[in-house]
Amino acid sequence: MSTLDYGILAPAWAATGAAELVDDNALLKAMLATEVALAEAQAELGVIPAGAAAAIRVAAVPARIDLAAIAAGVRETANPVVAFVEQLTAAVRSVDPSAAEYVHRGSTSQDILDTALMLLCAATLDRIANDLLACADGLAALAERHRDTPLAGRTLTQHAVPVTFGLKTATWLHLVLDVVDRVRRARAALPVSLGGAAGTLAAYHQYALDTTDPAGVTLRLPALVARRLGLAEPVFPWHGVRTPLADVAASLMVTTGALGKLAADVLVLTRTEIGEVAEEQAPGRGTSSAMPQKHNPVFSTLIATAARQLPPIALVLFGSMAVEDERSSGGWHAEWQPLRECLRIGAGAAANAASLAAALRVSPEAMAANLRLTRGAIVSERANVVLAPLLGKANAKRLLAEVTSAAERDGADLADLLTVALEQTGVAVPNVSGLFDPSGYTGMSGPLVDRALQRFESVQKEIT
Amino acid sequence: MSTLDYGILAPAWAATGAAELVDDNALLKAMLATEVALAEAQAELGVIPAGAAAAIRVAAVPARIDLAAIAAGVRETANPVVAFVEQLTAAVRSVDPSAAEYVHRGSTSQDILDTALMLLCAATLDRIANDLLACADGLAALAERHRDTPLAGRTLTQHAVPVTFGLKTATWLHLVLDVVDRVRRARAALPVSLGGAAGTLAAYHQYALDTTDPAGVTLRLPALVARRLGLAEPVFPWHGVRTPLADVAASLMVTTGALGKLAADVLVLTRTEIGEVAEEQAPGRGTSSAMPQKHNPVFSTLIATAARQLPPIALVLFGSMAVEDERSSGGWHAEWQPLRECLRIGAGAAANAASLAAALRVSPEAMAANLRLTRGAIVSERANVVLAPLLGKANAKRLLAEVTSAAERDGADLADLLTVALEQTGVAVPNVSGLFDPSGYTGMSGPLVDRALQRFESVQKEIT
Amino acid sequence: MSTLDYGILAPAWAATGAAELVDDNALLKAMLATEVALAEAQAELGVIPAGAAAAIRVAAVPARIDLAAIAAGVRETANPVVAFVEQLTAAVRSVDPSAAEYVHRGSTSQDILDTALMLLCAATLDRIANDLLACADGLAALAERHRDTPLAGRTLTQHAVPVTFGLKTATWLHLVLDVVDRVRRARAALPVSLGGAAGTLAAYHQYALDTTDPAGVTLRLPALVARRLGLAEPVFPWHGVRTPLADVAASLMVTTGALGKLAADVLVLTRTEIGEVAEEQAPGRGTSSAMPQKHNPVFSTLIATAARQLPPIALVLFGSMAVEDERSSGGWHAEWQPLRECLRIGAGAAANAASLAAALRVSPEAMAANLRLTRGAIVSERANVVLAPLLGKANAKRLLAEVTSAAERDGADLADLLTVALEQTGVAVPNVSGLFDPSGYTGMSGPLVDRALQRFESVQKEIT
Amino acid sequence: MSTLDYGILAPAWAATGAAELVDDNALLKAMLATEVALAEAQAELGVIPAGAAAAIRVAAVPARIDLAAIAAGVRETANPVVAFVEQLTAAVRSVDPSAAEYVHRGSTSQDILDTALMLLCAATLDRIANDLLACADGLAALAERHRDTPLAGRTLTQHAVPVTFGLKTATWLHLVLDVVDRVRRARAALPVSLGGAAGTLAAYHQYALDTTDPAGVTLRLPALVARRLGLAEPVFPWHGVRTPLADVAASLMVTTGALGKLAADVLVLTRTEIGEVAEEQAPGRGTSSAMPQKHNPVFSTLIATAARQLPPIALVLFGSMAVEDERSSGGWHAEWQPLRECLRIGAGAAANAASLAAALRVSPEAMAANLRLTRGAIVSERANVVLAPLLGKANAKRLLAEVTSAAERDGADLADLLTVALEQTGVAVPNVSGLFDPSGYTGMSGPLVDRALQRFESVQKEIT
Repeated sequence: MSTLDYGILAPAWAATGAAELVDDNALLKAMLATEVALAEAQAELGVIPAGAAAAIRVAAVPARIDLAAIAAGVRETANPVVAFVEQLTAAVRSVDPSAAEYVHRGSTSQDILDTALMLLCAATLDRIANDLLACADGLAALAERHRDTPLAGRTLTQHAVPVTFGLKTATWLHLVLDVVDRVRRARAALPVSLGGAAGTLAAYHQYALDTTDPAGVTLRLPALVARRLGLAEPVFPWHGVRTPLADVAASLMVTTGALGKLAADVLVLTRTEIGEVAEEQAPGRGTSSAMPQKHNPVFSTLIATAARQLPPIALVLFGSMAVEDERSSGGWHAEWQPLRECLRIGAGAAANAASLAAALRVSPEAMAANLRLTRGAIVSERANVVLAPLLGKANAKRLLAEVTSAAERDGADLADLLTVALEQTGVAVPNVSGLFDPSGYTGMSGPLVDRALQRFESVQKEIT
Repeated sequence: MSTLDYGILAPAWAATGAAELVDDNALLKAMLATEVALAEAQAELGVIPAGAAAAIRVAAVPARIDLAAIAAGVRETANPVVAFVEQLTAAVRSVDPSAAEYVHRGSTSQDILDTALMLLCAATLDRIANDLLACADGLAALAERHRDTPLAGRTLTQHAVPVTFGLKTATWLHLVLDVVDRVRRARAALPVSLGGAAGTLAAYHQYALDTTDPAGVTLRLPALVARRLGLAEPVFPWHGVRTPLADVAASLMVTTGALGKLAADVLVLTRTEIGEVAEEQAPGRGTSSAMPQKHNPVFSTLIATAARQLPPIALVLFGSMAVEDERSSGGWHAEWQPLRECLRIGAGAAANAASLAAALRVSPEAMAANLRLTRGAIVSERANVVLAPLLGKANAKRLLAEVTSAAERDGADLADLLTVALEQTGVAVPNVSGLFDPSGYTGMSGPLVDRALQRFESVQKEIT
Repeated sequence: MSTLDYGILAPAWAATGAAELVDDNALLKAMLATEVALAEAQAELGVIPAGAAAAIRVAAVPARIDLAAIAAGVRETANPVVAFVEQLTAAVRSVDPSAAEYVHRGSTSQDILDTALMLLCAATLDRIANDLLACADGLAALAERHRDTPLAGRTLTQHAVPVTFGLKTATWLHLVLDVVDRVRRARAALPVSLGGAAGTLAAYHQYALDTTDPAGVTLRLPALVARRLGLAEPVFPWHGVRTPLADVAASLMVTTGALGKLAADVLVLTRTEIGEVAEEQAPGRGTSSAMPQKHNPVFSTLIATAARQLPPIALVLFGSMAVEDERSSGGWHAEWQPLRECLRIGAGAAANAASLAAALRVSPEAMAANLRLTRGAIVSERANVVLAPLLGKANAKRLLAEVTSAAERDGADLADLLTVALEQTGVAVPNVSGLFDPSGYTGMSGPLVDRALQRFESVQKEIT
Repeated sequence: MSTLDYGILAPAWAATGAAELVDDNALLKAMLATEVALAEAQAELGVIPAGAAAAIRVAAVPARIDLAAIAAGVRETANPVVAFVEQLTAAVRSVDPSAAEYVHRGSTSQDILDTALMLLCAATLDRIANDLLACADGLAALAERHRDTPLAGRTLTQHAVPVTFGLKTATWLHLVLDVVDRVRRARAALPVSLGGAAGTLAAYHQYALDTTDPAGVTLRLPALVARRLGLAEPVFPWHGVRTPLADVAASLMVTTGALGKLAADVLVLTRTEIGEVAEEQAPGRGTSSAMPQKHNPVFSTLIATAARQLPPIALVLFGSMAVEDERSSGGWHAEWQPLRECLRIGAGAAANAASLAAALRVSPEAMAANLRLTRGAIVSERANVVLAPLLGKANAKRLLAEVTSAAERDGADLADLLTVALEQTGVAVPNVSGLFDPSGYTGMSGPLVDRALQRFESVQKEIT
C-alpha cells in the first residue's frame, strides 16, 4: 500500500518539485533504465542477442510493474530488486518469451539499485546546480547594486564595525559558488555499479565465455552501461567502496550549510527591530492562522529547516561506509531512504534559495538608521587605530572604552565626547567626527565584492 | 502532487503497517480530531455554541480536505495549518454557515499541528509497545527453553567463556523490557498543545471574557481537550519547551538501539561458519536475485537497518530544543518529518523484532560443536581460578597461556597438555578434564534467566 | 605522555571545574575505588581474607599508578584496565605480598571501567543538578519580579502578540525543572557493573565455591559493591544492555537542549537593536581583541556552544547500544571519551547557566519601547477576536490586514486608522485604542508564572 | 588548571602521537607562529617597522605564555585570543617596549585562532596522508601476494560466491587511495584567515593608509602570511564561509569510514570460527585481564572505535556552517574542540591502520577450509549461469535451490546431487564437479587487483 506524502510535514521540500525527482516512480524508471542499458550494452558486446535487448526495452515500462508488490518483497528479501526483476522478467516474457532469460543477466540486486540511485543523484544534483546558479544570479545582482551600501557588521549579536551589504551578499555568493563547485564535482563522478554478486564480475564473465575475449568484454561492460546512462565508469566495483555516496552526502551537507548561512543572516536582518531586508510580500505568503498583521519570512524559514535536517540524516551515509563483508546486513540497506531524503531536502533548499534571492527586498534606510544606533561606537575600532599611535595602544583602548561607556550611559554622541576628552589630553586629532562616519570605514568591502562577481562570471563561462 | 512512497527504499519499515500510522492521511485525521475536540471542549465550557461544535464534527471529515492544496500552502506559510483551517472553515460553512467562525477559535497553527503529532506519537508508541511485548514473549519462550544450553560467549570477536543461550536471550529480553518501560512512560506523558499565538492563551481568554470565570475557563480548556483525545494535560504551554518530543525521541533511539543489539547478535550467530541460529525459512524469504543457495537473514537485516538510521535522524529533534523566540524560524519546522520518519522506523523495527523472535531457530548442536573448537581454551578462565591459589596468580596465568599456545599450535587438547604440565610442576589437581567442560562453567546464567523471566511476568501483570 | 588540555579550545567547559570531574586523575581514583569496594565486599562475603581487602585499600592510591604506562597499554590491549590491574597488583604486593592475588578477583576489565565511569557520571550529574537548581533559583527570582512586565512575543522573527517577561522566564524555569527531573532520575539509576568475563559472573561464582552458598554469595556481591560506591544494584549484568548509558546520554542532551533554549532567547534579546536584556558587565568580561566598545554576551555564547556540541557527540553512545557479542570490538570502546566529553560539556553548560541567570539584567524600558514599534499591530489578534463576531471572521481579518498594511506604510497609529475604518463600516466598538494596549493582552501569563514557581517550590521541598 | 588526558579513555588515538599534534601546546605554538608571520608580512609591506617584527619573533615563545590564564580568559571573553594577545604584548614589551603596539595589528581574534587551527589541520592531515600511504604499502604487498588466493565472498553474513583475498585487499587499497586523494586536496586548500573584525580588512587598511597603495598593500597581506605559514591564500575572508572546515571534516569522515571498512572486514575474518586472518601476536598485545587464552584483535578494534566516534563529532562542524552574522554566538566557538577531536581520531586511525596492515597474518588454509563448508553451494551462481541456457532460467534456479537444500539437509556434496538430478532431466553437462571448484569462479578478481596496484603506483609517483 502506498504511503501518502504530499509534503505536508516537509517544509524543506514541499511544493518545490524536489520530491518527484526521487520518489518511487522516479526510482522505478531509473531501475528500468538500468536494466535496459545493461541489456543493450551486453547486446553491443555480443553477450546477448540484439532482439532480447530490444524486447527488454519494449517491456521495461513503469505501467507493467506493481510497486506495492515490490514493497512487500522488501520485507521478504530485504531489497526491492528481487521482486522487481521477477516482474520485469514476466513483462519481457509477455513481449518475447525467448528474451526473458536475458533480463538482469549476470547482475546482483546491488548493481541495479546502486546504479538507479546514482541516476536519481544525477538528476537531483543537476537540478541543485541549476537552482544554485539561479540563486547566485540573484545574489550577484544584489551585491552589485549594494556594493557600497553600509550596514552594521554584527559579531556575537553586537554591532562590531561597518560592512557593506554588497560584501554580505558577496559572502553568500562566494559560499554558493563553493557549493556549485562541490555539487558539480560529485555529479561528474557518479559511477554505475556493476560488480556482480560479490564484486568479481564473475557471472558477467561466465556469460561472456563464448566471446573471443571474455575478460576484455567483461571489463568493458561497465563503461558501455555508463555511457548509456550518463554516468561515470567505475574504476573499481564499489559495493564495498562507498566514497561516491560519501561525496554526494558531503556535497549536500555543504549545500544546506551554505544556504543555511544565507537564511540565518536573512532571518536576523528581517527581525521586526532590525528590518534591513524583507522577503517580498505576495498574496497569502507568510500569513499566520491567528495574527492578521504577520508577514513571516518564509523562504528563509524553509531553508533554515533544511539546514537543520540534512546533516544528521546524511550521517547515516557516512556510517554505512564502515561495514563488513562483500555486502553487509543493514549497512547498505540503511543508505537508501536517507539518501532520498537528503536529495529532496537539498533540492528543496536550492529551489527555495533561488526564490529567496529573487524575493529579497533591501532597505538602505533601515541600515543607515541602525548604523546610527550606537552613536558612533560602531566605528570605535577605527578611532582606536588612529589614536593608538598617538596615545599608545593601551591608553587609546582605555580612553575609547571610557568614552563609549559614557556615551552609552548618557545617550550622547561619541564623537563629541571624544573631542572633549582629547582636548583634555592635549592630543590634536583633526576631524574627529569624520572618524565616526561608518561609510568611511568599510575597508576592502568594495574590491572583495568585485572579486566575488568575477568568480561568478568565470563559473558561468566555464559552464556554458 | 503526492509523492509515491510504497517503502521500496525503506526496508526499515516497508510492509509493516508502520507507515500508515503516520502518513499524510493519518495526520489529516489527527488534525481534524484536534479541531473537533477543541470545539467540543469550548462548547462544554460555554465559549462557543453547542451547535457550532456539532457542525464542526460533521464537517471535519478527510474527504472534504484537499491535501495537495495544503502542501502547496506549506511553501506559502511554512506550515500546513493555515491552508488546512481555511479548507475546514469552508467545509463547516457548507454544513452550517453560522458555525464557520467558531473553527480553530483562539488557536495558533502550532497548537493544532503539535497536538496532531502527539496523536500520531500515541498511536505509534502504542503499536510499538504491543510489538515489543510480542517480541518479549518470543524471547521469553526461547530463554526458558534454552536456559541451560551452553554456547560460546564471545568478546572482541574471540571465544571468551561459555554462556547459555538462555542468558543471551534473557539479555535481549531484559533490554526489550527496558524499552517497554521507556516507551510507555513517553506515551503516557504526551500532552496536547494549546498555547495560542505566543503561549499566553490570550485569545482563548479573550473569547472567554463573556463567561463568569474567564481565567478559570481558559485554564481548564487544555485538560478538556486532552481528555477527549486520550492525551495528557500540559502543565505549561510547550511551544518552546520541547521535552515531550525529546522524551519520544529518546524512547525511539533506545528502541532501535536495543533491537539493534538483538539483530547484531543474531547476524553473528547466523554466519555460515557459526550457524547457531537461523531465521526460519519461508517461501521467497531471504532469497537472492543471483545466488540460488542463499537464505539471507532478513528480519535481523531490516532491524539492523533501522538501528543505523534512527538515532541520527532523531538528533534533529534534540537540535530543535535549543531555539529562539516564542516560535523559531526553522527549529519547529525541522521537527515534523524527522519525527514521522523516526516513528515509522521505530514501529517497523518493533514489528520486525516480533517476527524475528517468532522465527528464530536454534541449533544446540552447532553451539556444542563451536564450543569444542578451541579444544578447551574457552574454559581457561576457570582453570586459572582453580590454579591461581595453587600456583600463584601470575604463575597460573603464565602456565595457562603457554599450554593454550601449545594446544593451538599443535591442535592438541588443552586438558591433556595441562595434565602433563601439572604433573611436571608436582601440583595435584583432581579431574583436570572436568575443569574444561564448558557446561560446567556457565556461572549464574540460569538464575539470571529466571530473573529476566520474572521481570517479564511482572510487566505483563502490570499492563493487563 | 600527557596531552595538555587547559580548555583553551573548549568554551563549553573551560574554567568551570567540569573537566576535573572526569579527567584521567578522576578516572584513576574511580577505578581504585571500584577495586577497593570489590575487595571489601568480597571480604564481607568471606570470599577473600579481610587482611587482603585492607592491604588493597592501603595500596590503592593514585600516587602508585603511572598513567602514561596505562595509556601505552590502551594501544596494546584496547583498554586501560589490563595495565592498571598489573600496576595495582604490584602496588598491593609491595604492601602485602599475600594480598596480591586477591586484586580484581573474578572481574573483567569492563566491570572495573564501567563502574568507574558510573562514578564519574554520578559526580557530574550531582554537580549538574546542583547548578541547575542554582540556575532555577535565579530564574524564579526573575519570573517573580517580572511576572507582569510586558514584552513582544516573537514568532518566526516577527512581533506576534505580547507576553510577559515573567512568562518567558517561567518557560525557561519549567524547562530547567524538566531537566532536573531527568538528570536526577538518570543519576539514581546508575548501576555498578559486575558481570565477569561474559556476564555470567562465573569467576565470582567459582571463587565462592568454598562458601556455604556459592550462588547466593555471588548474586549478593553486586549489591554490596553498589552500596559502598553509592551506586545502584544492577538487576542484570549490563555489558550488553546499555540503557543506563543511554539514559545518561538522553539526560545530557536534554540539559544542553534546555539551556540552549535559554541562551538562544537571551542572545536575541541582547542584540544591539533589541537590548531588552544584557549580561551584567564585569571587568574584562565580553571584551574584544579589536573593538573597544564591545560587550559581548559571554555566558549565553558559552551555553550555545555546548548546545551545538553535545547532542551529536552523545549520538555515539546511542550507536554503541546496537553491538554484537558479549563484548563488541569497538562499540564499548567508542563510548568512553564521548561520555567524558558529554559529561564535561553538560556540567559546563549548567555552571554557565547558573552564572547567566545570576548575571541577567532586564530593561523593562526597552521592552516597552519595542512593544510600540509596530504602532499597535502586535495586538492585532485581540482586535481580530473582538471584531470577528461583529464583522464576521473573514471580514474582520481582511479589514485588520488592510489597516495594518496602511499603518505600516504610512507610519501611522493602528488604533487611529481602525477607528476611522470602523466608523465607515458603521460598526460601533468602544475604546478602540484600549484594545491596542499590549499590557492588556498578556492572557494567562501571570497564572502560568505562578504555576512554574509552585513547581519549583515543590521540587525544592522534594530534594531537601 | 590543566586537565590530565593521557588518552586512557581514548583508544582511538592513545599512544599514537596524534594527540600531541593538536594539544594546547601545539595550538599555542601555532598561534605564536601566526602572530609572527603576520608581523613579518606587515614589515615586508612597510606597515610596521622591521625591528618590531624582529622583537615579536624573539618574544613569541611558548615559555612566556601562561596557558592556564588563557583558559580562564576563555570564560571571560568566549575565546582564548584576547588573553593570549595581552600576554604576548607584555612579552614583546619586555623585549622591546616600542614593538608592543605592533602586536596583532589590525587583527581580530578569529583571524589568529582560525589560522592557528589551519596549521594544526595541516600538520595532522600531512601525518594522516603519510600513514595512509604506509597502510597502502602494506595492503599492496598483501594484494600482490594473495592476488589469486580464493576465499568465500560473504553477503548478508552468508557465503555468496568466491572472491580472492587479493581482491578484498585491493578493495581496501582502493578505498585508502580514495582517502589519500581527499585528504591531500583538503590539505592543499587550507587557507590563512585574515579578515579583521568583520571580514572587511578595514583595520589592516587603516594601518596601511600611510603607504603608497593602501588597498593593494591590504589585499596582498593574506598571501604573504600564507606563504610564511605554508597555507593557501584565501580568495575571500572566510569568517562566515566555512567550506574549508567542511572539507576537512568530510575528508576525516571519509578517513575513518574507509579504515573502518577495513577494520570491520578484519574483525569478521578474525572470528574464532573463521580464522582467515589474524593480527600478529606481540608480547602483551591483545591480552585480557581475565582470560589467559585471549588474543584479541587490537588495531582493528581501535580503528573500529575511531569509525564509530568521528562522524557524529564532525557533524558539529557542518552544523556550524549555517550561522548568523559576521561572527555568530556559539557557531564558531563550537567548532574548535570537535575539530581537535576529529583530527586526533583521524590521525590515530591512520596510525593504527598502518600498524594493522603491517601486522596482518593470512591463512590461505583456513580460507580453503571455509570455502568447502557449503559443499559446493558457494559456486551455485556459476552452475546457474551454465544451466540457465540449458534448462531455462526459472527451471535452473529452482533445480539448484532444491539440490542445494537437499545437500544442506543431508550433508551431501552438491556436485554429486546435481549430477544425479541432471541425469534424471536428461540434460548433459560435462564436468559438473569442475563447476563447483571455487578457485575457478573468481571472475575479474586478478585484473582488478592489478588495476588497484597500478593506481597505487601512480599515486606514489605523483607524490614523490
